[in-house]
Amino acid sequence: MNPVNDVFLRAARGEVTEYTPVWFMRQAGRYQPEYRKIRERYTLPEIVRHPEVTAEVTLLPVEQFGFDAAILFADITTPLYAMGFDLDIVEGRGPVIFNPVSSLDDVERIKPFDAESGTPFVLEAIKILKRELKVPLIGFAGAPFTLASYLIEGGPSKNFIKVKSFMYSQPRAWSRLLERLTEAMFDYLQAQANAGADALQVFDSWVGRLTRYDYETYVAPHMKRLFEKLAGLEVPVIHFGTQSMHLLSSMAAAGGDVIGVDTTTPLDWARDRLGTRPVQGNLDPTLLFAPAKVLERGIDAVLSANAGRPGHVFNLGHGILPGTPPESVALAVELVHQKSAVKP
Amino acid sequence: MNPVNDVFLRAARGEVTEYTPVWFMRQAGRYQPEYRKIRERYTLPEIVRHPEVTAEVTLLPVEQFGFDAAILFADITTPLYAMGFDLDIVEGRGPVIFNPVSSLDDVERIKPFDAESGTPFVLEAIKILKRELKVPLIGFAGAPFTLASYLIEGGPSKNFIKVKSFMYSQPRAWSRLLERLTEAMFDYLQAQANAGADALQVFDSWVGRLTRYDYETYVAPHMKRLFEKLAGLEVPVIHFGTQSMHLLSSMAAAGGDVIGVDTTTPLDWARDRLGTRPVQGNLDPTLLFAPAKVLERGIDAVLSANAGRPGHVFNLGHGILPGTPPESVALAVELVHQKSAVKP
Repeated sequence: MNPVNDVFLRAARGEVTEYTPVWFMRQAGRYQPEYRKIRERYTLPEIVRHPEVTAEVTLLPVEQFGFDAAILFADITTPLYAMGFDLDIVEGRGPVIFNPVSSLDDVERIKPFDAESGTPFVLEAIKILKRELKVPLIGFAGAPFTLASYLIEGGPSKNFIKVKSFMYSQPRAWSRLLERLTEAMFDYLQAQANAGADALQVFDSWVGRLTRYDYETYVAPHMKRLFEKLAGLEVPVIHFGTQSMHLLSSMAAAGGDVIGVDTTTPLDWARDRLGTRPVQGNLDPTLLFAPAKVLERGIDAVLSANAGRPGHVFNLGHGILPGTPPESVALAVELVHQKSAVKP
Repeated sequence: MNPVNDVFLRAARGEVTEYTPVWFMRQAGRYQPEYRKIRERYTLPEIVRHPEVTAEVTLLPVEQFGFDAAILFADITTPLYAMGFDLDIVEGRGPVIFNPVSSLDDVERIKPFDAESGTPFVLEAIKILKRELKVPLIGFAGAPFTLASYLIEGGPSKNFIKVKSFMYSQPRAWSRLLERLTEAMFDYLQAQANAGADALQVFDSWVGRLTRYDYETYVAPHMKRLFEKLAGLEVPVIHFGTQSMHLLSSMAAAGGDVIGVDTTTPLDWARDRLGTRPVQGNLDPTLLFAPAKVLERGIDAVLSANAGRPGHVFNLGHGILPGTPPESVALAVELVHQKSAVKP
């Protein structure tokens, strides 16, 4: 069934819309008391393995705040278990990999990924959500570089020494690793679209730590291949990185129907460089901790940087932070809708 | 006494030099076995409080690797003790403040800083070094925003929620805090120049986490004031931030004779926007973990991005990382000197 409210999908295709659609990265999560209650009974990986709980968590913020899109509740590490990785999400730290990759042998030992057998719960959750949702559902996956950084570092990293050293000193193993991750993430995203996801987002959260030269040399060819394959799926694909202003043109050249603009990349600067390509972003998530007047001024700044150009999906420039007051989220959604509405 | 080798100072003034001078941020530190040996006897704050040890540590990399400048061994938190802050440098975490700032009252309680009485050991170390060094000595201080982020967060931060919330919701206390830090850091830097420092660097390490709007609103006026005062000292001042490509023009407008360019900001892009303003940077510090050929290619990329323009101080785009192989540092210095030398 098509979503009743398709403003997000039309904006993602670059069409003029009656108002600017809005959703927030990590809109389902720890800042919500309802989510924290569910987390008392389930760990994050357990939620993801129970499709009905995933659906409940995914729906919560949409119903509560009136977002124009839902994003499937999952983690970028969700498909890694089926690829033979032993991992855990550690509170306050992030994903930890107990059998990290350090050689070509480790890369060759990665199991081929098949979404039907590897993450059936994700596909089931999408099917449940498609029956319940009145707004489009966004599926997602981590980009090969970002996943490789976890797999090689063994967890979140401050300086990315291990992943970059691997890339610099084992180019063949690196290339093979990114090929395998590209294949796996394509399969995962394709399965999500086939199950009913109306749009897809590729999160290359850590790619901004690479220089432009390194991105072009070690990452871009794989991203191009991924986006070429995704273009066959006929759902809009959002390409997102953080602290990646220096990579904007390279990432846009690699692909994606919509370019996700992070907090510090000026939205007007990005738009000027992307022509008519739709964009998503880019309110600073810390503004949700600010007094209402300051938050409002921040929203005004994002909307005026976009300057009424069609093809703008309002979002944060990064995920919602833990501790965000839910009432600020409600206010932000209301203000975006109100201020962007086309006056009759 | 003037330094025997003044290539760094001439490049910092934008003059044509016979080769590109090079120094590395944190060139004295944990990656050196000799430093680690000294650290067995002294903690970091203890080294700083012993001028003869500070001098020894500062000299080590200059003598060992042939850097064209020395940077005084200290920490950006060094002057904070005398301002009434109770803090410690925690291994693997960074500076931790036990009495953080959370109100205007806390700001008003900060003690006025006087370098002669507050950090006499720093000034003494500079005097010792000036007798020993054959290259220019760089003094330094943290910028008000970066210091405020430690003081308000209570330590290193991932998301800067507390400091930004303070800035957004207590603008008067914020402004007063930045004024006080500006006054204090000017006094500290002035005293270093008076003691003999040949150049100064202002480290605004965390400023890149602010949007351009927030930088202009909450930080730039204080930075302008600081640089106006520093301009009276008649030593070149380097203005450095990280992940701050989006702030390049704003930071350059605030001041600094030399603009420090971080790893991910493309050096050619920065030069094109800065006209004849000298720049410093910007080799990715992780390239020092790469095989020699890859490191060499990285050095070539930085030199060719500069394209022979005068006024380039070669540096990393961020501090040397712990675990860096000293032989890579030696090779990098040699390659920069060799490749940039003007052929007869």
